[in-house]
Amino acid sequence: MRPDDQVVRVPLGDRSYDILVGDQLIERAGEKIAPLLRKKRVAIITDETVAKIHLEKLIQSLADAQIESVSVILPAGEKTKSFDQFGKLLEILLSHQINRDEALVALGGGVIGDITGFAAATLRRGVDFIQIPTTLLSQVDSSVGGKTGINSPHGKNLIGAFYQPKLVLADVGALSTLPKRELLAGYAEVVKYGLLGDFEFYEWLEKNGEAVVDGDIFARIEAVKRSVQAKADIVSKDEKEGGVRALLNLGHTFGHALEAETQYGPHLVHGEGVAIGMLMAMDLSVRLGHLQIQDVSRVQQHYMSTGLLAKLPKIDGILWESNALLQHMYQDKKVDQGRLTFILMRAIGDAFITQEASNDLVLQTLEQFISSTSQEA
Amino acid sequence: MRPDDQVVRVPLGDRSYDILVGDQLIERAGEKIAPLLRKKRVAIITDETVAKIHLEKLIQSLADAQIESVSVILPAGEKTKSFDQFGKLLEILLSHQINRDEALVALGGGVIGDITGFAAATLRRGVDFIQIPTTLLSQVDSSVGGKTGINSPHGKNLIGAFYQPKLVLADVGALSTLPKRELLAGYAEVVKYGLLGDFEFYEWLEKNGEAVVDGDIFARIEAVKRSVQAKADIVSKDEKEGGVRALLNLGHTFGHALEAETQYGPHLVHGEGVAIGMLMAMDLSVRLGHLQIQDVSRVQQHYMSTGLLAKLPKIDGILWESNALLQHMYQDKKVDQGRLTFILMRAIGDAFITQEASNDLVLQTLEQFISSTSQEA
Repeated sequence: MRPDDQVVRVPLGDRSYDILVGDQLIERAGEKIAPLLRKKRVAIITDETVAKIHLEKLIQSLADAQIESVSVILPAGEKTKSFDQFGKLLEILLSHQINRDEALVALGGGVIGDITGFAAATLRRGVDFIQIPTTLLSQVDSSVGGKTGINSPHGKNLIGAFYQPKLVLADVGALSTLPKRELLAGYAEVVKYGLLGDFEFYEWLEKNGEAVVDGDIFARIEAVKRSVQAKADIVSKDEKEGGVRALLNLGHTFGHALEAETQYGPHLVHGEGVAIGMLMAMDLSVRLGHLQIQDVSRVQQHYMSTGLLAKLPKIDGILWESNALLQHMYQDKKVDQGRLTFILMRAIGDAFITQEASNDLVLQTLEQFISSTSQEA
Repeated sequence: MRPDDQVVRVPLGDRSYDILVGDQLIERAGEKIAPLLRKKRVAIITDETVAKIHLEKLIQSLADAQIESVSVILPAGEKTKSFDQFGKLLEILLSHQINRDEALVALGGGVIGDITGFAAATLRRGVDFIQIPTTLLSQVDSSVGGKTGINSPHGKNLIGAFYQPKLVLADVGALSTLPKRELLAGYAEVVKYGLLGDFEFYEWLEKNGEAVVDGDIFARIEAVKRSVQAKADIVSKDEKEGGVRALLNLGHTFGHALEAETQYGPHLVHGEGVAIGMLMAMDLSVRLGHLQIQDVSRVQQHYMSTGLLAKLPKIDGILWESNALLQHMYQDKKVDQGRLTFILMRAIGDAFITQEASNDLVLQTLEQFISSTSQEA
């Protein structure tokens, strides 16, 4: 029996949209998308990896709903989020004569969602787009919030737009083809929603997190639904990132420094940086007297039972060094008036924004983690 | 004595902004801009031609108001609205570390306004921008409406965004350095506002149009103010171009065909195409029985007294041909279900949208104008 689809409404006035969370949604995409289209023609943008697994059934589902489609298959990977690829994508869409009453469909992970959303924001000054995120990370993170964009040689996501999709289809069925490591990277962001603002959800994850990771469809639907609901609640209060939305950066100041040190390469992916970064933020919270050490142990326990990365990995050619990591943090856009901004925790489910942490304490946290770097190669 | 600044509010909810119309506003830009800035640092984007005339006094005015500025000087001309130039501009702005709490200032005509607005829309997912339009055309047209963008090999303005400035400073003093031909190209759009919806303004232009063209500061302020007010009224009803905003295209279906035939080159600039295009639209309106021929004569009279282009110019290498022009119209984005959309007129000050014109009648109008092509080289 197929579980019922869950619907999360992202309430943003005339930019409101629904996120459907369910199983086999790619196979049913045509019927879900058709009512939204002014003209029954779309361009699907995907990457080589995802195309092999999902493109044919998406095209078929669209065709069954009388929706004509053209497909653009981009190379897989972060390098696709470049200015050159973006320009090529726009020219391909123009050569397919995609007009204002047609729509783009992003089929893939965060990279595809980000570049497609940005293309939709800028093609003919804006066309509709629909997101079909196929990774856990993109389902629980980039499908909510309207952040679209590409990278610059100066940094990640520096060129882009806030642009909301018309519909998101989060098909948890697609997660069954994900490598375990990529699934866990997404699961770190799921745990984040519990840690930053929802103790009850965190408790639910303690009971059901292993089922989520192991592939239980019902547990996955519930985890994705509650995650996007949590993010939608925050984003609807703060669409353009002025205040409370910053809480979503829990683990990210540390995490980005780890990613920068590994040059955003394959040795440490974003979700892994966030996983360790959240533990670092908790460690720093304890040092500042905000958080009890038992809470840290409790979360570490959950990391172990689900397989989340809890220690800095040993990476060939990388010598973790606290001052270098601190330097990376100062390069980050979250530096304000020379003070680092951190999201810290008072308890599980209670995060807050602060600039009170001294460099000394931050260095202590970093050194603590460096000294217990994983010995596995 | 300096005339009072006039203020036109463009009411677009939380995207509302003011257009100041006045004399010597570039010299007073610092004091006008300072209250809007979160951080007293801006990037000025301008072109080589405008920089020579106005950049130094703008920098000085900003400095007097304690606003730090960096300047980016782009090549002059339509070719600057390319994807490559756009990418270069973004990278320069990033290398100047323009952040989200800083702003861009567009100093120049439509090209500079369009590319700067698009850069503002996409740099770090959106930074504030202020427009200082220095041509009559950009003061009365592109300073209202939030259309930003660049050209593609597939056509003009196909990549861009709707993005509103925080403030527009329309300095009529800057018009004194404009070549007469460029001034008249802008004046065609001024007349357009009278023709499409404001008979009283048209009558005012019959009395004062020559003063506007000849350089009277008070008349220029009034003409620019009433033009931007007219456009603001229409845009506030239809920000994203669904309905009434189409009236602003009076003269543009014909005009774009003329521009396309001359390859958007220097022989026929946009405002000239619009000037002739409006007369063609009136001719077609008469053929369809909507407009009295006396109204056409009356407008032709105004064209003559102010110097507006009323006849197709003789251009080396261009043989005006009605079927070729019709073909260009069918390439235009305003084609819907195979029918050309025209803005026609029932009377001076009363335009409407229609798809009723047959190709035969359109060809008759075109042939009428081709047969009376100007004999001046």
